[in-house]
Amino acid sequence: MALIVKKFGGTSVKDLDRIRAVATRIKATCDEGNQVVVVVSARGGVTNRLVADAKALHPHPDDREMDMLLSIGEQETIALATIALHAIGQPAVSRTGAQAGMITNSAHTKARLIDISGGDILEQLAHGKVVIVAGFQGVNSSGHITTFGRGGSDLSAIALAAALKADVCQIYTDVDGVYTADPRVVPNARKIPELAYEEMLELASMGSKVMQSRAVEFANKNNVPFEVRNSYNNNPGTMVKLDTTLEDVVVRGVACDKNQTKVVVSELPDQPGAASKVFQYLSDTNVNVDMIVQNVGRDGVANLTFTVAADETHIAEKAVNECLAVLGQGEVILADSMAKISVVGIGMRSHSGVASTMFTALAEHGINIQLISTSEIKLSVAVDSEKADEAVRVIHSAFDLDKE
Amino acid sequence: MALIVKKFGGTSVKDLDRIRAVATRIKATCDEGNQVVVVVSARGGVTNRLVADAKALHPHPDDREMDMLLSIGEQETIALATIALHAIGQPAVSRTGAQAGMITNSAHTKARLIDISGGDILEQLAHGKVVIVAGFQGVNSSGHITTFGRGGSDLSAIALAAALKADVCQIYTDVDGVYTADPRVVPNARKIPELAYEEMLELASMGSKVMQSRAVEFANKNNVPFEVRNSYNNNPGTMVKLDTTLEDVVVRGVACDKNQTKVVVSELPDQPGAASKVFQYLSDTNVNVDMIVQNVGRDGVANLTFTVAADETHIAEKAVNECLAVLGQGEVILADSMAKISVVGIGMRSHSGVASTMFTALAEHGINIQLISTSEIKLSVAVDSEKADEAVRVIHSAFDLDKE
Repeated sequence: MALIVKKFGGTSVKDLDRIRAVATRIKATCDEGNQVVVVVSARGGVTNRLVADAKALHPHPDDREMDMLLSIGEQETIALATIALHAIGQPAVSRTGAQAGMITNSAHTKARLIDISGGDILEQLAHGKVVIVAGFQGVNSSGHITTFGRGGSDLSAIALAAALKADVCQIYTDVDGVYTADPRVVPNARKIPELAYEEMLELASMGSKVMQSRAVEFANKNNVPFEVRNSYNNNPGTMVKLDTTLEDVVVRGVACDKNQTKVVVSELPDQPGAASKVFQYLSDTNVNVDMIVQNVGRDGVANLTFTVAADETHIAEKAVNECLAVLGQGEVILADSMAKISVVGIGMRSHSGVASTMFTALAEHGINIQLISTSEIKLSVAVDSEKADEAVRVIHSAFDLDKE
Repeated sequence: MALIVKKFGGTSVKDLDRIRAVATRIKATCDEGNQVVVVVSARGGVTNRLVADAKALHPHPDDREMDMLLSIGEQETIALATIALHAIGQPAVSRTGAQAGMITNSAHTKARLIDISGGDILEQLAHGKVVIVAGFQGVNSSGHITTFGRGGSDLSAIALAAALKADVCQIYTDVDGVYTADPRVVPNARKIPELAYEEMLELASMGSKVMQSRAVEFANKNNVPFEVRNSYNNNPGTMVKLDTTLEDVVVRGVACDKNQTKVVVSELPDQPGAASKVFQYLSDTNVNVDMIVQNVGRDGVANLTFTVAADETHIAEKAVNECLAVLGQGEVILADSMAKISVVGIGMRSHSGVASTMFTALAEHGINIQLISTSEIKLSVAVDSEKADEAVRVIHSAFDLDKE
């Protein structure tokens, strides 16, 4: 007998038929002799509808009230899923985030977990019940409802699995697992059977958006093994856990994020603190900066290049221009339609040659590299968006990711 | 400065425009220097939709899970109404039933209030905020969400008004107040400016369904004055409070309930306990029985006649037949399409002649009385449904209710 936490996202519970299908799947796991805790999201579309209603009333609705409003989405799902389990003869009971003891700080709409008691979940399991818990939500120490932000149901599931010392946490989604590349771009991409947390983090934070980074970080810190599975079939998924080092795989997969803008800040004064001042202005407006490169040119001027998410381009441009006005020198040039392509793998820590394989493959196909950034387990390049798909295929093939 | 509790039902908050209108009305009351607590229901249609979803999954969904499900309706409204107040510059904060300290027993879907702390409402009012509270819902001592049953938001408002020692409680609905008769039936019906609790109870429990009886009973017990008003205009409504005895009104109004079935149980053995056995069987199936008449006929047999709500006819018939099988004697005859018409007024306690005025008026118009029942402040007759509207007009006129 194992204790299993299962998480179903909004598309998996979007209508009554899907809720029935989820109930059937849960009961099957119970019938095999397991104890099951289920974390569910709001039904697909519900959260968007609630946000639209709130914004129709107020352009910037209060964060506390948004949490009060959005938390009803998951509360609806837990009740309906529990009723669906009853209908097929499976004892079950629902719990809100508060009732499951998901205690958070008071940062409404982006709350952070500070304690997970699990409430009476273990007691209910001992009584033979499935416990259906509302994901995405918690409660602060004053009893006010909080939410974790979009995708927070993954975090709820991983955190509950940790608190309950579950044997495994299964994250159900609409794909079979994590692939070596996006199968829509690379038809011979393969499902990766096992990943280390760090690899999942790198893949999850770019392109392969099957899961929220925060949830993966939490799993990593607390050593919670989890499996990414498809809610529409029974195929085995991708198991994510501590680096096993059993395999000699150098590169696990290729990720691609097409919505990047390259920002070049040229003619900066070549003096200590000029670049840091630019980043200070960007940080003050909460713009995430990536792939930073700095060159010192001739004539005592420096160039600073980095990428930002495309939808933050205008905020970034404004922040940099304000900074340049203070510095009294410099110019901003934007190049949108950039894609960031990364190869990820813990194995590359101890293997040289990853960069040369990647750069050679791109060069042979005439794909120009505009920026490079590296980490211990990731190597990223920025290329023109229109070359992105070709670049992913070329790299996927160069590392033999299509082969067993 | 007064402390005012306002309650808005589902039609008053059914869409975003109506929620904005409610917000404007609330702010106007604040701008006059009052402190305002608002109790709201689920948006019109939401509860029905949730019930339909649950019943599509299970013919008899679990009561606890129904409370979990239905309570989201009010939670949606409190958040949206609060956001609408913010949009017009009125500080406000929302509270669920649990957060407002509405403590109930554990009778899910029909919970009874056992304590009302009000939570931190007075503190929030002192900070200049409007507090928007979810009606219809509470929490039991174990932290499980409960609901009071349909119409329970009226009870929430009256109970909060009592707990907070509010100066007045305003129940907003879609009519101007309580009328001497249904204006759709009696065009010259008049709005009643003041009513005693007991009169409101009698009127509310039949026909004039502007308010739930339980809420009126609670107001009566705790002496909470309340006003029934129209959320679509600023007309004064009907004030309901302790019997003032300032006026010399005998009859306040005429109520009509058309959905009644007359049940005649004939040939009962004329022995002690035969009738009580019939009512025991009915009570065991939760059928409400009204207008009971018992006659002892010749030959040692008794006849028992009463009315039940039309939608409980078949349950009542089944229960009575089971009883008759045990008694070994008796027969059931049903007459549906009956209407119960009542005149209500505390004044009739000390006035004779109410019955003769009523019966004479009906007789003069050839309307046959099938059953009669009386109480200190009410006189009811059962007539054929198709004669009901005419009967109401005739009685309304006989008591001069159309005159100031």
